[in-house]
Amino acid sequence: MTETGSSVEFGYRLLARDGAARRGRVTTAHGAIETPAFMPVGTAATVKAMRPADVRATGAEIVLSNTYHLMLRPGAETIARLGGLHAFMAWSGPILTDSGGYQVMSLAQLRKLDEDGVTFKSHIDGSLHKLTPERAVEIQDLLDADITMQLDECPQAGLAKDKVAESMLMSLRWAERCRKAFRERPGYALFGIVQGGVFDDLRRESARALADMDLPGYAVGGLAVGEGQDEMFRVLDVTTPEMPDNKPRYLMGVGRPSDIIGAVMRGIDMFDCVLPTRSGRTAQAFTAGGTVNLRNSRHREDPRPLDPACGCPTCATFTRAYLHHLFRAEEMLGPMLLTQHNLCHYQNLMAGLRTAIEEGRLAAYAAEVEARERAGDLEPLGAIAGGR
Amino acid sequence: MTETGSSVEFGYRLLARDGAARRGRVTTAHGAIETPAFMPVGTAATVKAMRPADVRATGAEIVLSNTYHLMLRPGAETIARLGGLHAFMAWSGPILTDSGGYQVMSLAQLRKLDEDGVTFKSHIDGSLHKLTPERAVEIQDLLDADITMQLDECPQAGLAKDKVAESMLMSLRWAERCRKAFRERPGYALFGIVQGGVFDDLRRESARALADMDLPGYAVGGLAVGEGQDEMFRVLDVTTPEMPDNKPRYLMGVGRPSDIIGAVMRGIDMFDCVLPTRSGRTAQAFTAGGTVNLRNSRHREDPRPLDPACGCPTCATFTRAYLHHLFRAEEMLGPMLLTQHNLCHYQNLMAGLRTAIEEGRLAAYAAEVEARERAGDLEPLGAIAGGR
Repeated sequence: MTETGSSVEFGYRLLARDGAARRGRVTTAHGAIETPAFMPVGTAATVKAMRPADVRATGAEIVLSNTYHLMLRPGAETIARLGGLHAFMAWSGPILTDSGGYQVMSLAQLRKLDEDGVTFKSHIDGSLHKLTPERAVEIQDLLDADITMQLDECPQAGLAKDKVAESMLMSLRWAERCRKAFRERPGYALFGIVQGGVFDDLRRESARALADMDLPGYAVGGLAVGEGQDEMFRVLDVTTPEMPDNKPRYLMGVGRPSDIIGAVMRGIDMFDCVLPTRSGRTAQAFTAGGTVNLRNSRHREDPRPLDPACGCPTCATFTRAYLHHLFRAEEMLGPMLLTQHNLCHYQNLMAGLRTAIEEGRLAAYAAEVEARERAGDLEPLGAIAGGR
Repeated sequence: MTETGSSVEFGYRLLARDGAARRGRVTTAHGAIETPAFMPVGTAATVKAMRPADVRATGAEIVLSNTYHLMLRPGAETIARLGGLHAFMAWSGPILTDSGGYQVMSLAQLRKLDEDGVTFKSHIDGSLHKLTPERAVEIQDLLDADITMQLDECPQAGLAKDKVAESMLMSLRWAERCRKAFRERPGYALFGIVQGGVFDDLRRESARALADMDLPGYAVGGLAVGEGQDEMFRVLDVTTPEMPDNKPRYLMGVGRPSDIIGAVMRGIDMFDCVLPTRSGRTAQAFTAGGTVNLRNSRHREDPRPLDPACGCPTCATFTRAYLHHLFRAEEMLGPMLLTQHNLCHYQNLMAGLRTAIEEGRLAAYAAEVEARERAGDLEPLGAIAGGR
């Protein structure tokens, strides 16, 4: 366990409102986070294809890393001996770690889940591991995460209500066990996770019970698992009003730009998602005009930047033709440049949302973003050059 | 064909000597190159895993790119329409392109070689192509290469002397055809390539015949193909004295640091090799203490920089433990960081050689480099921490 000797208290300051949307600031031992904020995912202690300084340059102030992956490789104790995750991955800003529960259910083999916790085999080497609420907190302490997530169970989509209720109640008991296990330090926080599937009363019950525990922050889990955007927004509509106004609210694993905009309008402050990074590795670009597949042959001789509206280093330096070439030739620079662009695109969206809330024009901003996206990608070159 | 409108004449200026070693400066349409110089290899218009600005930051002033790869994908005419290779890959400095001949012989299928040129099938899509001396020059003109290499034939190691002589004479005839095809422009140059295998008289004959053509620069080809360092140095000993003193000399495809040092001591000015980049992708590091394999488990909890003597961003920022983790987890950041270090290591070596020649202490510098390498890698951590 690494001590930073921080004297900064963890906290959330509400700076402005626009409807249910909140413009705020989260303070942590490793720095402040302007919210609404997007957290790039650094699964194995690296935001794939990005140097830490490049991640910071996109505008990101906090990264997320995965307990499940790190506990298996290189191991939480190893990272602790090396000075904690900030030193290990050379990221000096705040870090949020998930609890590992979600990845255990999606990646590990031979899972056995009961009240005590979950036993599983590593997908890397088949070794046996056990994750309990207490061990999940201990691991995140060893990693020196600024924000520790409680261990929870994320039920599959489509599960019957009684099963979802059972699971939600166990997650509440696990939240209480995590609270007891969590070692209080200035600038560090434990977040509880609201569960309850798509059932309004279960979501409300979960949110209220967690609020009673007076944790430093709260997440909404179990969404973006296939229920669709309308259903997700409906759940947020009933959930966020039950969440304390003076604590940050984090929607886990979300999402596409339109998901983020809608969730911000419903009072969410923090997001994480693999979409910008994963898409960047598979030639899928996020642009003002929507998603663009750079493997498409229409880009082959296109001398224009990927997104003329974007000021990122990729758009300032390279053409669509070159990015197309890099992906066709399977060159590593393709994923590097496109990940950088996609992360910039997400961070620019968050900056736009923050400014719009401050100026009380969030609805207009959201409509502008949507209109630009609906207008679609750049006209094909032929339409410009006259049938080239 | 892109016109830069350069008014700089291509040329070589000899600034200092130390024995046979030369400290010089090559001027080109896209800038000057301090020699001895190492050219990172950017096969498919990208130095793998490196942004162009990162390549420049290692100290590289010129990159090499491969005619064979670019003629097949995206095609020389495509790159010309996009403004040439400098604009395409966003490298504003000088570029040398090889002729494609070497890769045709090592990568292409169904090769048919005769006096006219070489016909082959693409290793990418099986399409049929022909490379003649004239077409090789035309392609490099379309690419806008500052330095164009003549088409030559590089005979396999171990070939009988009469076959090597035949091949060398054809390469001379091809050099003459390239000279006629080459379009003179200020700041651009055609290099001839000395061949002749390991036969002293053939090497001398080739070097003298090329010198008579009064080309702007010369390369030594057909070495580092398995003949061994001693044999390579012996060939250089008989070849470089026959090469004009007022033209740059380029040893193609070489090599390890000790190869470069020995070749500089024999009067070579320019080098290219895939070793620092390719090794960087396979966890092999070049350090002051020799090569280090970062996959080795001894690095697992080593908090020290890869090379404490190195000032590169990788060594300034990350630990051996982290680099080890990245390669074990097959994270793209591993190749990115290690390629950057290896290229810095090579460029630092070249800078050291240049300074040593200026100061007339090349032999001492070479001995120091060799002594440090012989001292080996850092002591294991246990030896420091007392049997940890």
